[in-house]
Amino acid sequence: MEDGALRARRDLPRPEPAPGEARVRVILAGICGTDLELLRGYYPFAGVPGHEFVGVVEEAPGHEAWRGRRVVGEINAACGACDDCAAGRRAHCARRTVLGIRGRAGAFAEALALPVANLHEVPAALTDEQAVFTEPLAAAFRVPEQVDVARRRVAVVGAGRLGLLLAQVLAGARCELVVAARHPDARRRLGELGIAGVAPTALPARWADVAVDCTGTPEGFALARACLRPRGTLVLKSTYAGEAPMNLSPVVVDEIVVTGSRCGPFAPALEALAAGRVAVGDLVEAVYPLARAPAAFEHAARPGVLKVLVAPAAS
Amino acid sequence: MEDGALRARRDLPRPEPAPGEARVRVILAGICGTDLELLRGYYPFAGVPGHEFVGVVEEAPGHEAWRGRRVVGEINAACGACDDCAAGRRAHCARRTVLGIRGRAGAFAEALALPVANLHEVPAALTDEQAVFTEPLAAAFRVPEQVDVARRRVAVVGAGRLGLLLAQVLAGARCELVVAARHPDARRRLGELGIAGVAPTALPARWADVAVDCTGTPEGFALARACLRPRGTLVLKSTYAGEAPMNLSPVVVDEIVVTGSRCGPFAPALEALAAGRVAVGDLVEAVYPLARAPAAFEHAARPGVLKVLVAPAAS
Repeated sequence: MEDGALRARRDLPRPEPAPGEARVRVILAGICGTDLELLRGYYPFAGVPGHEFVGVVEEAPGHEAWRGRRVVGEINAACGACDDCAAGRRAHCARRTVLGIRGRAGAFAEALALPVANLHEVPAALTDEQAVFTEPLAAAFRVPEQVDVARRRVAVVGAGRLGLLLAQVLAGARCELVVAARHPDARRRLGELGIAGVAPTALPARWADVAVDCTGTPEGFALARACLRPRGTLVLKSTYAGEAPMNLSPVVVDEIVVTGSRCGPFAPALEALAAGRVAVGDLVEAVYPLARAPAAFEHAARPGVLKVLVAPAAS
Repeated sequence: MEDGALRARRDLPRPEPAPGEARVRVILAGICGTDLELLRGYYPFAGVPGHEFVGVVEEAPGHEAWRGRRVVGEINAACGACDDCAAGRRAHCARRTVLGIRGRAGAFAEALALPVANLHEVPAALTDEQAVFTEPLAAAFRVPEQVDVARRRVAVVGAGRLGLLLAQVLAGARCELVVAARHPDARRRLGELGIAGVAPTALPARWADVAVDCTGTPEGFALARACLRPRGTLVLKSTYAGEAPMNLSPVVVDEIVVTGSRCGPFAPALEALAAGRVAVGDLVEAVYPLARAPAAFEHAARPGVLKVLVAPAAS
């Protein structure tokens, strides 16, 4: 897999922060499913990927107080001037750049640049290995922000990188939770967290008020849909790779509400990590130096692998 | 097309009303897209199809006051005892029968049986040709029941049988409405109704707060999705024939809410017809006697054809 897309680049210029931006030295960066899809060509992005990170502010012209602080960062940098921004949908600004995804070099590098407004200081009690989970954990916290889950029956399909974070978020949200996981290891892991894990075939039909597909596959979509009661809510928490054959008629007949779900709020994610309400230590499979990023991606792409981290500082 | 599925049947027994049911002599029955899909085998139903009708109550044991009344009828007959019924989702009862669709002989016959509770008397001012549109018009009224459209930008994709009814419903709902119609004839018809009709390619991107796909095709889905702003609502008002290649990633990235929409309330439909707020006379393409039902279905299946009616009384 040492092809062009995966060749480790040591020749990149350090990003120059634009006005209002900070340059952040990356301590750790996490590989997520979107990164793997980027490399497979599902998005038209040819730059440096990586959007999950923890780092230290090296420079923040005009915002000197940020220098030296350990931070995580929201990944959407909005224009602030369009209709979407004015309507409070900054994460959906059509002119936005997105760290490591769209028009902005990402975190698999020694340094990155982000608007100061996107940064969140990391509480001292958190390790770097915990803090690097803030971005995907924030995405998980987006679900209860969109859908009221309290006292409702909730099913999560998939117990990989994202599913395990979401399961823990929902376990703290006073709902009746079941997680469908294909691998016995994942079900064991859920059991250790006090969460009911079942094989996908054991997911009860027409049971859930809310079901979340964390797999991004047509099979996961179909499973999540089938376990919903009529007029239930199906949350899509993962992007789907290209076009896939789908049957949407059951969505119509059962009047299902399908809700796309993307980036979420950083504050509750940092709080949950600091309070120990979400355990992430077990999710780290390996840490690679930046020079070995290709091997890290290869590792992350193996089935059933949880979080693989890249540590530029260790290069 | 004189195959088994389409052979006109004159040998069917007249349905016997169960307790609480009425037998209704069918005056007119309308052919809709679901009927055409049933014949193509997309649903496992081998009985008499037809769920849009106007008729006269012949018999209603224990409910004699209904005898001789002209009626239309809601098509879902619920068990009344299950969790869905208890939760107020009678139209989604797993044990329901559905007129002409599931476990209950339908309206392309001299008579049908339905629970008395499903019947609505037709105001005297309405013609039979108007009243037979009550069921599909009720389905259109389901949209503003599910989604708040007032003062919002709404796009309808498709101006066929269902799209033209929905467009008229929405035109009365104080929203900013645009309807995408492929055929110039349909756009002219919209213009005569005072509704803005545009070619599908002229539908503005990222414009609508709410978009409704009335086509039941992947192309219609994609068009409706593309004209939505981020976090907009995409209503699926038509079933999709089997599996089709779909790309759901934009739904995730733009956090679109997709809402399946099926049967709707009869009362506002009858009111709108009686008040002349929805014009349906122009939608009738032809009326066939029951003996010529195969020819009626063939006619209804032609592209661009609006409503074809079957008149059992005229047989």
